[in-house]
Amino acid sequence: MSSQTEQWLEQLTLDEKIRLCAGENMWSTAQIERLGIPPLFMADGPHGVRKEKSDILLGVSEPATCFPTASALASTWNVELIEQIGTGLGTECRRLDVQLLLGPGINMKRSPLCGRNFEYYSEDPYLSGEIGAAFIQGVQSQGVGTTLKHFACYNTEFERMTISSEVDERVMREIYLAAFERIIKKAEPWSMMASYNKVNGTYATESKFLLTDVLRGEWGYTGFVMSDWLAVQNRVKALEAGMDLEMPGPALSGARALKEAVLSGALPEQSLNDAARNILRAVEKSMEPANTNPDWSFETAHGLARAAAEEGIVLLRNEGGILPLDRTQLSSLAVIGRNAKFPLVQGGGSAKINPAKLDIPFDEIRNLVDARTDIFYADGYMDKAAADLNLIAEAVKAAGMADAVLLFVGDGEDEGNDREHMDLPESHVQLLQAVAAVNRNCIVILNNGSAVEMRRWIDSVPAILEAWLHGQAGGSAIANIVFGEANPSGKLPETFPVKLSDNPSYLNFPGDQGRTVYGEGLFIGYRYYDRKQIEPQFPFGHGLSYTTFEYSDLQIERKREEGELSVSVNITNSGHRAGKEIVQLYIGDPQCGLVRPDKELKGFAKVDLAPGETKTVTIDLDKRDFSYYDPKIGDWAADSGSFDLFIGASSQDIRLSERIELEFASKPVPPLNEYSLLKEWLSTDQGAQAVRYLAEHVAEDSHLKEMILNGELRGFFQEMPLYRFVRLLSKDGTAARWSDRMMEDLFGQ
Amino acid sequence: MSSQTEQWLEQLTLDEKIRLCAGENMWSTAQIERLGIPPLFMADGPHGVRKEKSDILLGVSEPATCFPTASALASTWNVELIEQIGTGLGTECRRLDVQLLLGPGINMKRSPLCGRNFEYYSEDPYLSGEIGAAFIQGVQSQGVGTTLKHFACYNTEFERMTISSEVDERVMREIYLAAFERIIKKAEPWSMMASYNKVNGTYATESKFLLTDVLRGEWGYTGFVMSDWLAVQNRVKALEAGMDLEMPGPALSGARALKEAVLSGALPEQSLNDAARNILRAVEKSMEPANTNPDWSFETAHGLARAAAEEGIVLLRNEGGILPLDRTQLSSLAVIGRNAKFPLVQGGGSAKINPAKLDIPFDEIRNLVDARTDIFYADGYMDKAAADLNLIAEAVKAAGMADAVLLFVGDGEDEGNDREHMDLPESHVQLLQAVAAVNRNCIVILNNGSAVEMRRWIDSVPAILEAWLHGQAGGSAIANIVFGEANPSGKLPETFPVKLSDNPSYLNFPGDQGRTVYGEGLFIGYRYYDRKQIEPQFPFGHGLSYTTFEYSDLQIERKREEGELSVSVNITNSGHRAGKEIVQLYIGDPQCGLVRPDKELKGFAKVDLAPGETKTVTIDLDKRDFSYYDPKIGDWAADSGSFDLFIGASSQDIRLSERIELEFASKPVPPLNEYSLLKEWLSTDQGAQAVRYLAEHVAEDSHLKEMILNGELRGFFQEMPLYRFVRLLSKDGTAARWSDRMMEDLFGQ
Repeated sequence: MSSQTEQWLEQLTLDEKIRLCAGENMWSTAQIERLGIPPLFMADGPHGVRKEKSDILLGVSEPATCFPTASALASTWNVELIEQIGTGLGTECRRLDVQLLLGPGINMKRSPLCGRNFEYYSEDPYLSGEIGAAFIQGVQSQGVGTTLKHFACYNTEFERMTISSEVDERVMREIYLAAFERIIKKAEPWSMMASYNKVNGTYATESKFLLTDVLRGEWGYTGFVMSDWLAVQNRVKALEAGMDLEMPGPALSGARALKEAVLSGALPEQSLNDAARNILRAVEKSMEPANTNPDWSFETAHGLARAAAEEGIVLLRNEGGILPLDRTQLSSLAVIGRNAKFPLVQGGGSAKINPAKLDIPFDEIRNLVDARTDIFYADGYMDKAAADLNLIAEAVKAAGMADAVLLFVGDGEDEGNDREHMDLPESHVQLLQAVAAVNRNCIVILNNGSAVEMRRWIDSVPAILEAWLHGQAGGSAIANIVFGEANPSGKLPETFPVKLSDNPSYLNFPGDQGRTVYGEGLFIGYRYYDRKQIEPQFPFGHGLSYTTFEYSDLQIERKREEGELSVSVNITNSGHRAGKEIVQLYIGDPQCGLVRPDKELKGFAKVDLAPGETKTVTIDLDKRDFSYYDPKIGDWAADSGSFDLFIGASSQDIRLSERIELEFASKPVPPLNEYSLLKEWLSTDQGAQAVRYLAEHVAEDSHLKEMILNGELRGFFQEMPLYRFVRLLSKDGTAARWSDRMMEDLFGQ
Repeated sequence: MSSQTEQWLEQLTLDEKIRLCAGENMWSTAQIERLGIPPLFMADGPHGVRKEKSDILLGVSEPATCFPTASALASTWNVELIEQIGTGLGTECRRLDVQLLLGPGINMKRSPLCGRNFEYYSEDPYLSGEIGAAFIQGVQSQGVGTTLKHFACYNTEFERMTISSEVDERVMREIYLAAFERIIKKAEPWSMMASYNKVNGTYATESKFLLTDVLRGEWGYTGFVMSDWLAVQNRVKALEAGMDLEMPGPALSGARALKEAVLSGALPEQSLNDAARNILRAVEKSMEPANTNPDWSFETAHGLARAAAEEGIVLLRNEGGILPLDRTQLSSLAVIGRNAKFPLVQGGGSAKINPAKLDIPFDEIRNLVDARTDIFYADGYMDKAAADLNLIAEAVKAAGMADAVLLFVGDGEDEGNDREHMDLPESHVQLLQAVAAVNRNCIVILNNGSAVEMRRWIDSVPAILEAWLHGQAGGSAIANIVFGEANPSGKLPETFPVKLSDNPSYLNFPGDQGRTVYGEGLFIGYRYYDRKQIEPQFPFGHGLSYTTFEYSDLQIERKREEGELSVSVNITNSGHRAGKEIVQLYIGDPQCGLVRPDKELKGFAKVDLAPGETKTVTIDLDKRDFSYYDPKIGDWAADSGSFDLFIGASSQDIRLSERIELEFASKPVPPLNEYSLLKEWLSTDQGAQAVRYLAEHVAEDSHLKEMILNGELRGFFQEMPLYRFVRLLSKDGTAARWSDRMMEDLFGQ
């Protein structure tokens, strides 16, 4: 317990505590000058510092480094790199006198349509958790706080302030809360943001289950919880639930309600103290001196943004090895698409940074090509929806004259607006089809925040680079990848389906009548495509390289604790260029009594290899990696039995696998009783014996008696609770003789 | 109100009423000799009368006509024929002194794996409802009661006595209750059977929502409700919920509990009176004299069973018109598969009839072929799982010698046991592959109760007949179809997917931890394959004929009531054989604000046409056919706008369609208030005006003010409830000024 915080708390008046539990204005907590309590100033994140110049919601922000968006960052699968970016963001925060960066956003990418997908990492909670934790560790290493958001089950922009996400508890635990849990335990973010939506009918800001029982009770969280901007419905309920800080301020009606509730005794002042204490602890942390990198500049940050953009670019397709382009062999090159001159570096809304610098893809490409190479440029499109036939004609002309085409297509995303489809804009598709028809060496460079459909054109192009919304240095990153200055090493953190209707949430997205039902259950992303045997366009974890990698020598070493394993595998760069490979470890649990996905990501490593070099990658696992959440016992559990370990270059490119047997301590099993099914009785020796006893001593129906003694009871009978079966055994009067005491009499239980 | 029943009721003692509310034994209600109240004797159905010879659950039953199982009956789509079968069943009941036939079963075929699918009609509630109503009208025309079952949401045998079906109310209303509603309103079954399972956590036998609120309150049902055998958990709760009769008897503990509850005042005696009254009304009905068909015999019934089997057989595939076989051209024929000699006429469990007669397919085929034709027979398989290579070798030899092969494969179903997969038995698949490899004229005859996978072999065979579990006369029906004595006219009442994982319930079937989640929502059967754009093996409504039909001249006549339409279409037999076509009418509602399936069956007709003949088919529609269930208003509603009418030969073979505009009285719309979303405000003239007023008089944020006045508010703002948006408009002090009264002040609402 911090003495400074406790001292403050003792001296604060009721009014001051209430003031502290709401923003003072749009971006800051209250300053209590009397006690020397400074404000916490906040800036939107998460891929840059969006510090508003004035006290409004979406105005003009200070220039800052615009790193690649979350989609691109996650595609790097490089936690060291993400931590460096976090460190950079923390440094920029300190320079801008920002104490709290509102990020990262780690909501699951449930549907490709969600308007904020560019702000999120992945469809997988393990990957999101690892990336998010590294990000936070980086930012907070600079003495700047983070705000892990949006808690929880906030996966659509549709009616986001009122919609209720209807999610089973097990699904919530294993999918939608899992990344939060991992990050909180690993990286201790200073604060959490409660999301706009309701969860199973209760506003996230008013959910005691989420904000207190799970977050603090189970996960041991000690930071503070703020609301998303204007997310508070009932301030008193929210405080009682554990929602410490209402944003933005001034929250006059909320403050009034709190005061009335405390004075009337409806709200214990202790609850208010708890909230204030949580906030004050962060204020106290913000006052600690920190050593920030003195060499940081927008210039060095730009280099880091470029490195991240390069590692985040995913080479989806490269037929005939057309990429990288050989500059020495290229006599002409067409660059087509306005995105090449007006790059899509990020999406819209609260995450929109004012970039300190900006690389223009076209300029960077021109800088890299040989001086003798002719370069043609055509806009190709202007408006999104309507194709401009003149622009297409110009583009086709340019494409027709060139050895190869770099075709920039794709669209941004926008907070508050879900996409209506996952096609490229119609004008882009038409351009693409027209250009690909005249030039077979058409390289598509995609800009988007989440998966897009490709079935209308993919077969007509040899190469596709997923460049995402790539941040301010994406232009040079793309140029470097195209010409082989950098070797692509990103892999998809989300499945690209063939068509929208293949997506698991499709039937229920975004919902209606105030509800969005998570009908696919546990089967988000690759978990669904695996189980449903639906071939995706590109699977989760997919990404090509300019070199090749071989996997060998899977070794599994057992540690002392149950479920603790050390899994190692050798990776060899079998090609001719240096490159990085992302090795993925998935676990399957084929014998579990509960429904489980075919496989789930439980580890990964990115390894840098010179040509011919081999490195051993080691991934450690523990019991939790084999566990599922068991709602019946309210805890995580792992069952003894077989498990599959899959080592893959993607979720569908499994290179090595092994089935192992693991022993875990049995979870508490309820004892057999008269409500247990006959099949449950028959599944244990003692139970089967008891059923035989019944046959011998109770059964009046000779046919049934014989079936029992011969072990011939079919499902018809086996699916009955024992007490109902006994009624059949003894038709006349059994019901009278059958009682709660009977078990005791019969079996001495 | 019936005076006899009321008189009885007045004279019954408490004990007698309690006795009446439970079975007296396994199969009968109580006889109260003192008052001349006879028992109701019951027999399992639904495709025959299974009258137990003694008082046990599954013993030896009286011989009776075994009609085709429900799967086959529904495939006829012939309501007149179904009614005739009902009449026949009623006649057999009377002859066996059975007052109540425990059927029909109309549960939706949610998964092909459900062990009782053979007892159910369809994946579509409209088709199930029409077939079920005709069945009941037939039975009850003979003064014999029916028991409509199993109410409700009972769609798996897995842990069926304890599992909870987790279903949204709208899904329940539109899918899982809809056929019950249709039948109750149309055919008034004497009784209903409450199912084993729980629905959303409450036993169906204890669900006041189902048994009283919906069944009696909304649907006006006046019959009685019995429990499935041993389905009662808590007798008092069940009675309170509206579960009148506990079966089987004697239900001593239940009776004791009822008596204690009445005597202690915990249960009003009125509730017991209501239950007794419901049962007595049926007893009274059973005493009415009825004229039953004097010409009925097992012989005539067998003919009807054959007619139904013929109409229920579905010609799924007929490449090159290989069927019907031309007897004059056939020098040799191989009949392969034990099912040809030991026909699968039905499934196992309570529905298993003791057939009065039995046609053997092999014998019937031999009877029909020309005397000069050589016939070879081979068993092909014995055991289900393990292929017998000797038997396969014999079959291959027989197939190799024959001009054509009739290959019988397929398996039964069994109450209490869900299937584990939907492949044919492995021994049958191996046989099929081996035989098809040596004879290109291999005609597959399937016996099964629900869809099977065919992807491992379908491309190797030219013809497939789905003969279902076809009842005692199926053998001759198959022979008649094969040789063209009868022209196939059945169509599928359920989708045949390519693979099990395509099925909509696949991710959730059968469930775990005591729950089965209906995660696919409304999208059962073809509704799912349509929406998800998954190509089925054979779509709902599919079935070929030996002739061809043309569809023309779609006419839509509007009647006076809203939504009342008369839809007519001309059907022409454009081939050279007499035949019957099943014309299907589907409705789509592309503009609904709620999620709706692409199309839903709302009418059908079976029409018998001579070669060259044309008939006009007319189908009437009313408002309900265009309606969805709106949980917000707790009622059915139809929205004005566009609707699609599709006339199809199957759900995927739409021959004619038209988009029409319909006007319906508006449903009550809640008035705008401060919790309404900004987009809702902006969607009405008055609301938009009010928002402008806000901009002009409240807005302090000039940027937002401008956006409002220029109509530039994006989703970011439009998805906000108005009262939160207003907080943004006026940053300082708005919260204090904003109150419940503000709407009134501003807009005079």
